[in-house]
Amino acid sequence: MTLKELYGEIEKYLDQTIEIKGWIRRHRKQKEFGFIDFSDGTCFKHIQIVYDKETKDFDHIDALKHGSAIRVLGTLVKSEGKGQDYEIKAQEVTLEGDCGDDYPLQPKQHSREFLREIGYLRPRANLFQAVFRIRSVAAMAIHTYFQERGYVYLHAPLITASDCEGAGEMFQVTTLDLDRVASSGKLDYNKDFFGKPASLTVSGQLQGETFAMAFRNIYTFGPTFRAENSNTKTHASEFWMIEPEMAFCDLNGLMDIEEDMLKFIVKYVLEHAKDEITFCDQFVEKGLIEKLEKLVSSRFTRITHEEVIKILKKAKVDWEFTPEYGEDIAKEHEKYITEYFNGPVFITDWPKDIKAFYMKQNSDGKTVAAVDLEVPGAGELMGGSQREEDYDRLINRMNEMGVPVEGMEWYLNLRRFGGCIHSGFGMGFERLLIYLTGVENIRDVIPYPRTPGNCEF
Amino acid sequence: MTLKELYGEIEKYLDQTIEIKGWIRRHRKQKEFGFIDFSDGTCFKHIQIVYDKETKDFDHIDALKHGSAIRVLGTLVKSEGKGQDYEIKAQEVTLEGDCGDDYPLQPKQHSREFLREIGYLRPRANLFQAVFRIRSVAAMAIHTYFQERGYVYLHAPLITASDCEGAGEMFQVTTLDLDRVASSGKLDYNKDFFGKPASLTVSGQLQGETFAMAFRNIYTFGPTFRAENSNTKTHASEFWMIEPEMAFCDLNGLMDIEEDMLKFIVKYVLEHAKDEITFCDQFVEKGLIEKLEKLVSSRFTRITHEEVIKILKKAKVDWEFTPEYGEDIAKEHEKYITEYFNGPVFITDWPKDIKAFYMKQNSDGKTVAAVDLEVPGAGELMGGSQREEDYDRLINRMNEMGVPVEGMEWYLNLRRFGGCIHSGFGMGFERLLIYLTGVENIRDVIPYPRTPGNCEF
Repeated sequence: MTLKELYGEIEKYLDQTIEIKGWIRRHRKQKEFGFIDFSDGTCFKHIQIVYDKETKDFDHIDALKHGSAIRVLGTLVKSEGKGQDYEIKAQEVTLEGDCGDDYPLQPKQHSREFLREIGYLRPRANLFQAVFRIRSVAAMAIHTYFQERGYVYLHAPLITASDCEGAGEMFQVTTLDLDRVASSGKLDYNKDFFGKPASLTVSGQLQGETFAMAFRNIYTFGPTFRAENSNTKTHASEFWMIEPEMAFCDLNGLMDIEEDMLKFIVKYVLEHAKDEITFCDQFVEKGLIEKLEKLVSSRFTRITHEEVIKILKKAKVDWEFTPEYGEDIAKEHEKYITEYFNGPVFITDWPKDIKAFYMKQNSDGKTVAAVDLEVPGAGELMGGSQREEDYDRLINRMNEMGVPVEGMEWYLNLRRFGGCIHSGFGMGFERLLIYLTGVENIRDVIPYPRTPGNCEF
Repeated sequence: MTLKELYGEIEKYLDQTIEIKGWIRRHRKQKEFGFIDFSDGTCFKHIQIVYDKETKDFDHIDALKHGSAIRVLGTLVKSEGKGQDYEIKAQEVTLEGDCGDDYPLQPKQHSREFLREIGYLRPRANLFQAVFRIRSVAAMAIHTYFQERGYVYLHAPLITASDCEGAGEMFQVTTLDLDRVASSGKLDYNKDFFGKPASLTVSGQLQGETFAMAFRNIYTFGPTFRAENSNTKTHASEFWMIEPEMAFCDLNGLMDIEEDMLKFIVKYVLEHAKDEITFCDQFVEKGLIEKLEKLVSSRFTRITHEEVIKILKKAKVDWEFTPEYGEDIAKEHEKYITEYFNGPVFITDWPKDIKAFYMKQNSDGKTVAAVDLEVPGAGELMGGSQREEDYDRLINRMNEMGVPVEGMEWYLNLRRFGGCIHSGFGMGFERLLIYLTGVENIRDVIPYPRTPGNCEF
């Protein structure tokens, strides 16, 4: 049986003989008896195994090393010791897999930097037991939210010949023999796998729009890539994004969905990863649970970019970056504005020149129907917009912004073939996880992070 | 409201005025009245809109084109016509988005080849309304199966510097300026993004094993890539895989899970995509539902590769490929053996020389604890194995097979640091979808397929 099953109905197993398999997380030895801190990874909780001279093969058990895989046959009893209500009195402990003395994951506090270096072992450490289970649970929360509401899950393509944002440095994908390209001096894309240059996607939005025009409500949840050479706590070269897209949905409808979804996810994770969140609350970010519970019950403010600038300008703060109409806002402004409203803030109607070409142009000629969600303690968590549904206005905007129309005919045609008001947003999954766990560095919420110069395991 | 909501409680809305938004799938006009076949993509069912001279703006409605987006205000009534129980008597029909006369998706039978060329419109066609919703529902079935059983969902890395199978041609990922590589004649990987050559993954298994050693039961569900230059109905360059990996699980336990999971998925899809499966049963593969229901109730046979060869050799069949001990089996053999047992067959204990290095070596010195699942009408649907947990045997096998040990130390170390008996399998998601829908070509179950020479949209 597993520890998850055991803890699910623990009273039922009291005084019963059970068999469990898992790993020694710590081993404390006394002369006449010993304690094994045992975990099998199926839940965050461990259980203590007690053995003594009466246990079969005492000397062998006593010699078992931290990190080893073992099988335990024993009786579940109430514990008289501190720190646990139950423990297992062992009848038999057998070795399933030994652990070398050079095991790098010792039962002590390791730095997160060191743990990254042993990335293939770190999921065994408490912090990553918590983080990666929360990652899994949060992913399920997202699928549950959209599937219960009839959204179609779209696997957007990863390899692409188009570049959504017109920005974003991209990884090139090729089967050309680069040694040969160098030695021959010839670069012939006709001989490449797709017969033309191809890259890794930076967004599934454009394909998402095609599906929204067929299924009305859709979402993507898949990997995206950025080849930016930035070494910050919040940038990774490979990360997962959620990009829902809804037909017959305007900017207000979009905000309703964003707010509802985020509250659903947070509630779901609080419920389904209770022990893991509690651990993070205790050891990663004090007050995490309070922060999350507050979000669930909070009212999200909706305010225009212009109004935000007005508030920022009035504020008696010595800004590093002066807030200006028509310009982007800085991290310090985001922070101020969520504190000002004491909760999450939707900032709408952004200056068109700092936003993407596909966003719905407002009638003022200056702004677009874009919305960023600013969350206390997380900054910008989602970015979305109503999409420009007018063919001529869209193509004009592309021309103005220097976005090539060639190769984008299919996207433009969505406006000619039964197009309609529609909206969508994107949420970086890792940004959500940083918010949910309190972990600061994106490298610590991705199983095997890829960043400039780093592609290990 | 949406059609899904409407059909969910249709009796409740009888004689009520409702508002719906969606698309004209067909428009039949008479002199005094007209019929619009309306769909909003939220469910497979359409609804008929009836309008007549009394409807506001009759002439405008009459002029509405197939493919247009519309808003309908009308009353739900029982239909007296054939083919539907209910219809909507329109009070108002307004145009939300026009559709050009050059709309390529006409209300007639198009070839699948043509539909691939208009890949951004084909999700609106009935076949792809069915296929891509089944894809979405099947994905949810998989997540539900594993999450309900406590498995941790792992996002394995896509960009990798190692090659799992030692086989499989891979796409290279680079940020080097290839024009410059050609013109300068210099190829310097120190200047590449990761400081070394990197590729797109062909499998997340190795990383999966690291997580199984921490969480016991894990699964991946993500994209994988093959740069094989093969243009067949079953090969795509980008596809999704499910790769569960279980610690303390042997080959028999693995087969239990594979069987249980597959039956769960099929039942889930039959239940959650009833209309779509019924459509596929009628128009794609006659007898599909019967095939699927039979699978759910069937007993899966378990038999060794050697026994299979014995049966094939005894068979009075004029084989194209002669079955031989120690060799792989051909498609014709797979077909014969599932018909022989009249159901799915697990073939176990394969000759080691035709299987991967990481598979558990059996004591006979000739076979490995591998298992392929052969399913009637689908061929090989899953492939898995118990993994070699012995460090020395694994390293010997790698040396024998010429698999480089360098760069794989972390994988090997799993056997030195609390390793244990463990097993896993891989299932190609598209192969499953071909089986679930009856659609024959992998290009028709992937939203935007990538194959040699093809990277559109």
